[in-house]
Amino acid sequence: MSRRQQKRERMRKIIIKAAQEAFSTQPYDNVNMDEIADKALLSRATLYNYFDNKETLYFEIGLENYKEMQRIFPQVLEIEPTGLDKVMKLSTLVFQGIMRNSINFDIVRHFMEANNQAEHPIEETYDQYTQEELDDLPITSDTALLRYFNELMKYMKIWWDIIETGQNDGTIRSDLPPKHLAQIIQIYITGVLDQMVLVRRALEYLELPQETVMKIMLENLRKTLEP
Amino acid sequence: MSRRQQKRERMRKIIIKAAQEAFSTQPYDNVNMDEIADKALLSRATLYNYFDNKETLYFEIGLENYKEMQRIFPQVLEIEPTGLDKVMKLSTLVFQGIMRNSINFDIVRHFMEANNQAEHPIEETYDQYTQEELDDLPITSDTALLRYFNELMKYMKIWWDIIETGQNDGTIRSDLPPKHLAQIIQIYITGVLDQMVLVRRALEYLELPQETVMKIMLENLRKTLEP
Repeated sequence: MSRRQQKRERMRKIIIKAAQEAFSTQPYDNVNMDEIADKALLSRATLYNYFDNKETLYFEIGLENYKEMQRIFPQVLEIEPTGLDKVMKLSTLVFQGIMRNSINFDIVRHFMEANNQAEHPIEETYDQYTQEELDDLPITSDTALLRYFNELMKYMKIWWDIIETGQNDGTIRSDLPPKHLAQIIQIYITGVLDQMVLVRRALEYLELPQETVMKIMLENLRKTLEP
Repeated sequence: MSRRQQKRERMRKIIIKAAQEAFSTQPYDNVNMDEIADKALLSRATLYNYFDNKETLYFEIGLENYKEMQRIFPQVLEIEPTGLDKVMKLSTLVFQGIMRNSINFDIVRHFMEANNQAEHPIEETYDQYTQEELDDLPITSDTALLRYFNELMKYMKIWWDIIETGQNDGTIRSDLPPKHLAQIIQIYITGVLDQMVLVRRALEYLELPQETVMKIMLENLRKTLEP
C-alpha cells in the first residue's frame, strides 16, 4: 500500500468511526452528512470525497463490522470441540453483540429492504463477478450494496463451514444443506433479537428479563440443530 | 343499539375495509386519507367525522383483526385435545394468516414503535382503567393506542389460557408463568415471520421454500414448549 493509500485508508476508518457513533444514537433518517463531517472534524467537501452519500457510508459501517467478525470469530471457534458447540458459541456471540449495539441489524434490515425494492436482486449481480473483482470494487453509491453483500457472504461462509463440521462429526442434523440451516439460524436469531428490542416495554411490564428470553431462545436453537 | 348507532357502525366497517385495502398494497407512509375516502366512496369531511387521522384508522384495522381472532380462535381450539395441541394450532394459524397478509404485523410493529417513543408506556395507562371504561373509549387520535392495546390484551388472554391448560394437563413446561411463555412465543413467531418476509430474495436465491422454514420453526416451537 502506497503512503497515499495508507492515508486514505486511515481517513476512511476515522469517518466510519464517527458515522457509527452518529447512527448508534439516532434513527437513520435523522442523521445527516454535515453532522458526520463535524464529528470527524472534516469539511463537508472532504467527507464527500470519501463517500458519495449517507447510505454508502451506512453500508460501509456494516461491511467493516462483518470484516471484524471474520477476523475474530475463526480464532474463538477453534477451541470449541464440536460443530454444534461452534455454532452455539457463534450464536451466543451474535446475540450478545447485538443486544449491546443493535446498529448491525439495523443495517442488515436496511440492506434487505433496499434489495427487495431493487430491480435486479443483488444475488444475481453478485454471481456475475469474480471474487477478485468483488474485493476490488471502489466505494461509490453504485457499488455500496454489492460491496456490503460481498462481506455478508464471507461472513455467512463462516456459518456454512462450522455447520458442515457439525454435520460431519454427527452433532448437527443432516437433513438440510449447511446453507439452508445457516439461513434458518439467521432468520431465527435476527428475528428474535429484533422483536426483543421492539417489545422491550412489554418485557419490563411483564418483569421478564431479556436474559431469560435469550437463554430460552439459545436452548431452543440447540434443540433445533441436534440430529 | 339505536338506528343512528347502527348506521355509524356500518359506515365504520366500510371505511376500515377500504383502509385495509389501501394499507395492504402500499407502505404506511404512502397511504393518505384522500385515497381512503375515494376507495370508501366518501367525502374527505365524512371520513374525518369517523377517524381523526391516518394513524387512528390504521390502529382500528389492527383492533378489528384482533376482535375477529377472538371470535374465531376459541371455537377452533376447542377440538384440540391438549394444551400443547391448542398452542401449536394457534401458532400455525397465526403463521399461515400472516404469511398471506402481513398487515397485522406491520400494525403491531407500528404500535410497538409508537409505544417505545411515548412518554408514558401504554401499559401504565392501561392499568388505570377498568375493563368497562376501556371497552367504551371513543375512537380518537388520543385513545387510538389504548383502544388497540385493549384488544391486543384480550387476544393475549387466549394464549395465556391455553398455555395454562397445557401446564395443567402436563403437555407444556411449567418453569415459566403463562404470561412469560406467551410473550416468548409472540417474540418467536413475529420475529421469524418478519425475517421471512424481509429475506425473501435470499430464500429464493438459496432455493429454500418458505414452507420448509415454517415447518422447522413450528417443530422448533413445539420442542421449546414441551416439559
